[in-house]
Amino acid sequence: MPVENQFSLSCPLPISDYPRVLLAHGGGGKLMHQLIESVFVSAFSNLTLSAKLDSALLDLPQNKIAFTTDSYVVHPLFFPGGDIGTLAINGTVNDLAMIGARPLYLSAGFILEEGLPVETLWRIAQSMSQAAREAGVQLVTGDTKVVDKGKGDGLFVNTAGIGVIEHDLLISPSSIASGDVVLLSGDIGRHGIAVLAVREGLSFESDIQSDCAPLSSVVSDLIDNGIHIHCLRDLTRGGLGCALVELAEAARLCIHIHETSVSVRDDVQGACEILGLDPLYIANEGRFVCIVPPSEAQHSLEILHNHPVSTNASVIGEVKNANAGIVTMATAIGTTRIVDMPSGEQLPRIC
Amino acid sequence: MPVENQFSLSCPLPISDYPRVLLAHGGGGKLMHQLIESVFVSAFSNLTLSAKLDSALLDLPQNKIAFTTDSYVVHPLFFPGGDIGTLAINGTVNDLAMIGARPLYLSAGFILEEGLPVETLWRIAQSMSQAAREAGVQLVTGDTKVVDKGKGDGLFVNTAGIGVIEHDLLISPSSIASGDVVLLSGDIGRHGIAVLAVREGLSFESDIQSDCAPLSSVVSDLIDNGIHIHCLRDLTRGGLGCALVELAEAARLCIHIHETSVSVRDDVQGACEILGLDPLYIANEGRFVCIVPPSEAQHSLEILHNHPVSTNASVIGEVKNANAGIVTMATAIGTTRIVDMPSGEQLPRIC
Repeated sequence: MPVENQFSLSCPLPISDYPRVLLAHGGGGKLMHQLIESVFVSAFSNLTLSAKLDSALLDLPQNKIAFTTDSYVVHPLFFPGGDIGTLAINGTVNDLAMIGARPLYLSAGFILEEGLPVETLWRIAQSMSQAAREAGVQLVTGDTKVVDKGKGDGLFVNTAGIGVIEHDLLISPSSIASGDVVLLSGDIGRHGIAVLAVREGLSFESDIQSDCAPLSSVVSDLIDNGIHIHCLRDLTRGGLGCALVELAEAARLCIHIHETSVSVRDDVQGACEILGLDPLYIANEGRFVCIVPPSEAQHSLEILHNHPVSTNASVIGEVKNANAGIVTMATAIGTTRIVDMPSGEQLPRIC
Repeated sequence: MPVENQFSLSCPLPISDYPRVLLAHGGGGKLMHQLIESVFVSAFSNLTLSAKLDSALLDLPQNKIAFTTDSYVVHPLFFPGGDIGTLAINGTVNDLAMIGARPLYLSAGFILEEGLPVETLWRIAQSMSQAAREAGVQLVTGDTKVVDKGKGDGLFVNTAGIGVIEHDLLISPSSIASGDVVLLSGDIGRHGIAVLAVREGLSFESDIQSDCAPLSSVVSDLIDNGIHIHCLRDLTRGGLGCALVELAEAARLCIHIHETSVSVRDDVQGACEILGLDPLYIANEGRFVCIVPPSEAQHSLEILHNHPVSTNASVIGEVKNANAGIVTMATAIGTTRIVDMPSGEQLPRIC
């Protein structure tokens, strides 16, 4: 097993013979085995993966587990602050974290378009390897399919994840109560604008990087410090706006937020104004809302401020009994508006 | 929850307003919620899925679990004997079964091409629902992404699966021993030829249907009857030939098979001859090899014959110490040939 090769900076040898993905790389024969060995096994070395069984065999520390999946189709594959590989690891890690699970194991299913440079695949596998290490998860099983040129778009990847629940909290919209405080972990809108900028060839005065990050460790900090978290939600597709509407509807309560408390960087706000976008609905990949009992809001905020992914966390609102299922926002100009769920999406293929 | 709707024969109402998938169906807003409610929640109704958390919360009966994933890109989506949905359930169920796990929970990640008829998606979701019921698994978490027209091919789906190991066998190539007997569960080549026929508009005198089927229950029968299974492998991409070469290489032993014992239906053999294909390398979706100690071969065969997925099982060969890593075949004409692993694939996008 080429364990030492895990973070080498150049592609292993066999790739140079086949610099682009061929349909035959999906065929179950020698070429597929070479591709898996040289790209995936070298990037994700671990004993479970290298056993090359049809399934990974896993020992879990306890019985209560969480299971999730997401496919990633972001276009383009690389953007400031990350790539489809970092997204695919962090997105699934974060889905587990959002119900308070500690992420342990991930699967990866690749759909490659014929003609994809193997170098591109290799870079993405390296990103995934690094992101998995940072998030403390192991990629233990995988699959590769190849579709004909023109029937895909370079590379799509699906990750599924398994985590363990090591506490007795029910972190769910059903635990949200009237009077609860809504915390936001940082500024919003950066991931969407970073992807859009590179897609459309826009340049801004400052460098807008995706906020893509794993959230499992900050959630652990909250739980380990005894915070009785009622609900968590990461702000991916649909952004803060959609996330809050989903939670208000599921909890059958009203969530009231204050526009001036929602942090949006000036350069992101400027880009949104030029492009006619509302930062409230722009996707983030490392931001979440955390809903806690009012007596624990201040302590929660201190814990969030002590973690690098949420140093700028703030209280943005509270939960009320009135207007069940509705999100209201006190605007910067002193009015109150309803935050609705948009019909479609502002930015396709953002994750 | 529209549980009663689970097996209804017509699409739920909201679909008629949007007969084709739009990019907005992937956007996290109202349209995506409608699509998920009307197609997926109605097809896969269960309490875990309807909780609509970012992850499914699962209780497993014990700690030793198996985890696997596969993406499905078969073209066309529908073929005699199944569709991409039945494949996506049975393929992942079978990967779990092949290490002796009892499949419990599946995830599904859909990548839809803009313009896909929602009716098509709905039919596939219904197939998946039925296949999951037949295999005794629950689909508990999912994800939907939409890519622009021309950047996908109708529908791709990834499933990941979790199963429990309820025995002490190590079902793995490392358990294969010299003297072991190789059993094949039935005739080979039907899935590949069935897909190819509809893809290329070929018609044969007889109706060749895919052998797609769940294999978990026959594996349970073997284990419950005390068979000390050494190794199992389903014969998907690359067919019987690739599967045996993989096993021989991993076990560092020789697998010797007898061509006349490998059952190929006359119509499949005829189609292969016309098309210049070797049935040994054609994908199956409901066939497997089972490697057992010689003293248990007869009993294993009787158990296989009693299960509908393997009524025509046969002994096809044995494991030898000579020629480590090589598969040899005694041919019908009395010679011995080496069964090699092909470089690429005969039939792309077969699963």
